[in-house]
Amino acid sequence: MQSSEPQHAAIAELLANYKSGHALERDFYKSPEVYAAEQTAIFQKHWIFAGHTSQIPNVGDYFLFEFDVESIIIIHAEDGIKAHMNVCRHRGSHICLKKHGTVKALVCPYHAWTYDLDGSLTGARQMPADFNKSENSLHSVHVALVGGLIFVSMAEEPLSLAPMYESLTDVFDLFGFETMKLAHHQSYSINANWKLAVENYQECYHCAPAHPEFAQIHAMAASPAKFQANKERYAASLKADSTETKTKLKELNAYFDLAEPGTEGFQYGRNPLYEGALTGSVDAQPVAPLLGQLTGYDGGASEFMLGPLSFFLIYDDHMLGYRFTPTGQDTCVGDLYWFVREDAEDGKDFDKTALTWLWDITIKADEEIIVNNQKGVNSHAYKPGPLSKMEYFEQHFLNWYLRALGGE
Amino acid sequence: MQSSEPQHAAIAELLANYKSGHALERDFYKSPEVYAAEQTAIFQKHWIFAGHTSQIPNVGDYFLFEFDVESIIIIHAEDGIKAHMNVCRHRGSHICLKKHGTVKALVCPYHAWTYDLDGSLTGARQMPADFNKSENSLHSVHVALVGGLIFVSMAEEPLSLAPMYESLTDVFDLFGFETMKLAHHQSYSINANWKLAVENYQECYHCAPAHPEFAQIHAMAASPAKFQANKERYAASLKADSTETKTKLKELNAYFDLAEPGTEGFQYGRNPLYEGALTGSVDAQPVAPLLGQLTGYDGGASEFMLGPLSFFLIYDDHMLGYRFTPTGQDTCVGDLYWFVREDAEDGKDFDKTALTWLWDITIKADEEIIVNNQKGVNSHAYKPGPLSKMEYFEQHFLNWYLRALGGE
Amino acid sequence: MQSSEPQHAAIAELLANYKSGHALERDFYKSPEVYAAEQTAIFQKHWIFAGHTSQIPNVGDYFLFEFDVESIIIIHAEDGIKAHMNVCRHRGSHICLKKHGTVKALVCPYHAWTYDLDGSLTGARQMPADFNKSENSLHSVHVALVGGLIFVSMAEEPLSLAPMYESLTDVFDLFGFETMKLAHHQSYSINANWKLAVENYQECYHCAPAHPEFAQIHAMAASPAKFQANKERYAASLKADSTETKTKLKELNAYFDLAEPGTEGFQYGRNPLYEGALTGSVDAQPVAPLLGQLTGYDGGASEFMLGPLSFFLIYDDHMLGYRFTPTGQDTCVGDLYWFVREDAEDGKDFDKTALTWLWDITIKADEEIIVNNQKGVNSHAYKPGPLSKMEYFEQHFLNWYLRALGGE
Repeated sequence: MQSSEPQHAAIAELLANYKSGHALERDFYKSPEVYAAEQTAIFQKHWIFAGHTSQIPNVGDYFLFEFDVESIIIIHAEDGIKAHMNVCRHRGSHICLKKHGTVKALVCPYHAWTYDLDGSLTGARQMPADFNKSENSLHSVHVALVGGLIFVSMAEEPLSLAPMYESLTDVFDLFGFETMKLAHHQSYSINANWKLAVENYQECYHCAPAHPEFAQIHAMAASPAKFQANKERYAASLKADSTETKTKLKELNAYFDLAEPGTEGFQYGRNPLYEGALTGSVDAQPVAPLLGQLTGYDGGASEFMLGPLSFFLIYDDHMLGYRFTPTGQDTCVGDLYWFVREDAEDGKDFDKTALTWLWDITIKADEEIIVNNQKGVNSHAYKPGPLSKMEYFEQHFLNWYLRALGGE
Repeated sequence: MQSSEPQHAAIAELLANYKSGHALERDFYKSPEVYAAEQTAIFQKHWIFAGHTSQIPNVGDYFLFEFDVESIIIIHAEDGIKAHMNVCRHRGSHICLKKHGTVKALVCPYHAWTYDLDGSLTGARQMPADFNKSENSLHSVHVALVGGLIFVSMAEEPLSLAPMYESLTDVFDLFGFETMKLAHHQSYSINANWKLAVENYQECYHCAPAHPEFAQIHAMAASPAKFQANKERYAASLKADSTETKTKLKELNAYFDLAEPGTEGFQYGRNPLYEGALTGSVDAQPVAPLLGQLTGYDGGASEFMLGPLSFFLIYDDHMLGYRFTPTGQDTCVGDLYWFVREDAEDGKDFDKTALTWLWDITIKADEEIIVNNQKGVNSHAYKPGPLSKMEYFEQHFLNWYLRALGGE
Repeated sequence: MQSSEPQHAAIAELLANYKSGHALERDFYKSPEVYAAEQTAIFQKHWIFAGHTSQIPNVGDYFLFEFDVESIIIIHAEDGIKAHMNVCRHRGSHICLKKHGTVKALVCPYHAWTYDLDGSLTGARQMPADFNKSENSLHSVHVALVGGLIFVSMAEEPLSLAPMYESLTDVFDLFGFETMKLAHHQSYSINANWKLAVENYQECYHCAPAHPEFAQIHAMAASPAKFQANKERYAASLKADSTETKTKLKELNAYFDLAEPGTEGFQYGRNPLYEGALTGSVDAQPVAPLLGQLTGYDGGASEFMLGPLSFFLIYDDHMLGYRFTPTGQDTCVGDLYWFVREDAEDGKDFDKTALTWLWDITIKADEEIIVNNQKGVNSHAYKPGPLSKMEYFEQHFLNWYLRALGGE
């Protein structure tokens, strides 16, 4: 609506003023122009984790993936998982009003325009003679499956996932990405700009002071020296020549600004827990059956990320998924997903309360932290401060973010 | 506050890009500049239904008509109904704080500036020597009565209503506009831009899928062919040479973009109910005494509109009034008024619950529809789709709206 | 974020269009550009009353003073009262999360950066080699004490308070500013722009119609003629040659636009109560022990203001403090503080309910008035009206405000 030149100029100035090794300026979190630019440059472009195939096992099953002003129908169509914008091609009404359900066709509740599960328009009454149904399919959204994980991209030409698949298929097989199920999903509302939530997730500098439960299990919460010592202890404890170990210990660092142009960023790596700890639980002991083809616990946990908003923490017996999406400029939501192997039964093979304990506590603590971070950033006195050595991952996120906003 | 040129340029571009036969672009519903322009071009200019004389029968009685940031005092003054802005000429306080009441004078609660019922300033203490009371009357608002219906215009030079009065006085007499009373008034809050509510009211393409109760009574909810057949059946059933029939069947189409320049748009016409249906009620049978000079039920219902926001549905035994006004850019309110003849008594001649059943249900269904329409329009993926043949009235509204926003 | 020239032009036009003797244009209350300009020109520049030393008697005690997006830590450090922005120099988190408390050091809850009570950074883990703690102290805020009253200024170079101290030290001594304590503090939320609240406090034109309780005690609520008669009666009743009387009757008018350039505005004066009234209470009789060095009640009450937002009403037996700060453009808060001499005990020497009765009633009435003033100012029909002779003090506020916004 407004002419875009002065906005681009203002954003360009913000980008040019960024001082590497520091946090972002206040306007990156407060300017409506920045938020509008992020929609185009980030949310409409990158791959985002939307949910899991176990949520829609049968043809006709769907759920909605919603963020900011967008609503996307993720549906099990005849020939697999599809995604469509939840926007009627007639006058724009939402078509699916419930968060999940099962349908035979997608019928708009306003004027009954009817689409099949693939999004093709099959019925529209009383249209003019020159009306062409085939030009009025639902706006489709790209879908990619990583095992049962459903990723979507609203881009016309989505970023390539080929390097990720090539590098990590054996990892997905080992951890049984195809044979997991969603055990629990919870949304946590956060009164802060989405970047403050993502930044929070990118560094463990805050883990020791803020997350005593996490910090008792994960060695990465310690100082770099202590973390390094644990890494060496952990490496020494493994059977170096087993395929399982080699796969587990892969290290792929094509995340954020390290991704090749035209490809989506991704990362995989493994970190030690403290000696004796086997998984993320109240006593660090198993809370569910081993995942996939794993033959045993080895005292480590893997991390996998794909795109700028979706992160996974893979314990040997369960996997966490995290996604941060905006609901406005000053508010966002953190979605947590807990996965176990698909044949595990709640109450028998795992206990949902025990399974979810650590990260429910941890994200609630983060929520408070992030909101208080936003409050301080709001102040006119706020100046971006220097990052610590433990915030290198955040620096990669910031580098990527600045490039993305600059149009790269 | 902001320079107006770029805004005008942006609105001009939006207007130029409109594709006839289609819905409006997203920015028409989301841009603050558009909303600001609508205040001047539409709400401060056109006639709007404010209420009914039966609400203020005695001298000193008043009620407030409020929308967006405006509050208008509609008051029964010595020489008839007057309307004043509810804004003290001193430092701007609201003067009347209650939605309705009875006063001897209009006394500002802040500094006790006192106005008579005509809006003339009669008392202001301690003013400088050069202060002139006669220059500080309340800002007056134009009033026009259509029978007992009170219309207001905030324009300096209001649009002419002469063509409407000339064309329809016999209609108003037949239906007894002078001898009705307000039986019930209810406000329905709608979390959507006001245009989506008005658009919804302009077409019956949605009636069959969305309003089963209405669609059982009103033949206009059917396909054009079936509607036409009912029109013919209805016309054949009437005594063509009676004055009552001739008056009822008048057809005046000076609505929206069809209005003459300088005049307010209006429309009158009559449509058939289904065979056997006599009025808008649960069994389509009478719910109140016949209106005005009517001699009997004939199985039809009339429509009357005046200005872009005020619509009336005249059954033979009661009349509905509808008004849609913004409360902000993303929210509006639909006000429904139910009228019966003034000598009808609640509990004896009519039952308020029976009287209000059909349209209370119908607008609640519309409220949900309109809100879901807004949600879809919010999406960046939304594109204005093609209108059906049953949305010709909406096309007239859109044509008018675009011209109004363009300064015509 | 946006280029500032058109904004400055728009504000300059608003300023140029102001008509002396009248209220302000609507845009002064509604334009986001004006609100942004006020932050810099007023709130970040002028001295504001923050609280009282009796709230933080011991080293380590602190409370937060918060308005708009700002949070300031007022803390009792080793060498006196200090004020720091509640913004960590690392990534900006709020440091103190509770409204008041006692601490040994200021530890950020996010990454545990640690500051001493003076705001110096004493601990920050894992920082790069070139990191310099001494460059990362908390942003400090200037503090000035007027007796136990704590004033703060966020300016780099705060306005001089020297004329105020030179003129009024004997007044502060007489009323015992050093020996008061805070008896009660209450915040009143007001859904209106902060200026409408300050304007309300600047004139007693509204006292007679709006504040019957106040108007029974304070002669200033009467017409100028009656007020003058009471002034003369009051003056005649005093022992003109006593030092106490001479000090009480001082009159210093360096308020608002009357302040010397580079100095903060202030005012002191004394006004009569009605004959027989001794203080501001339900029966106008004493509610607490005499303040400071006063030897008796004389039937007057003094006013002291410092800066544009902080006002004090000094009865002979208690003192009121008022502060108005924005919480956004359309909302503000009025904070009321009741002070008594520090050795007075609640329940024995005074009764808190009796002490707070008059001004709790009065500000609640004002809250309603101010909100209704905002509602009217919101209307497009609002035009700034002429001020009465009783609003001369408001005129000084407006003159000062316009100069401040113009950069003077």
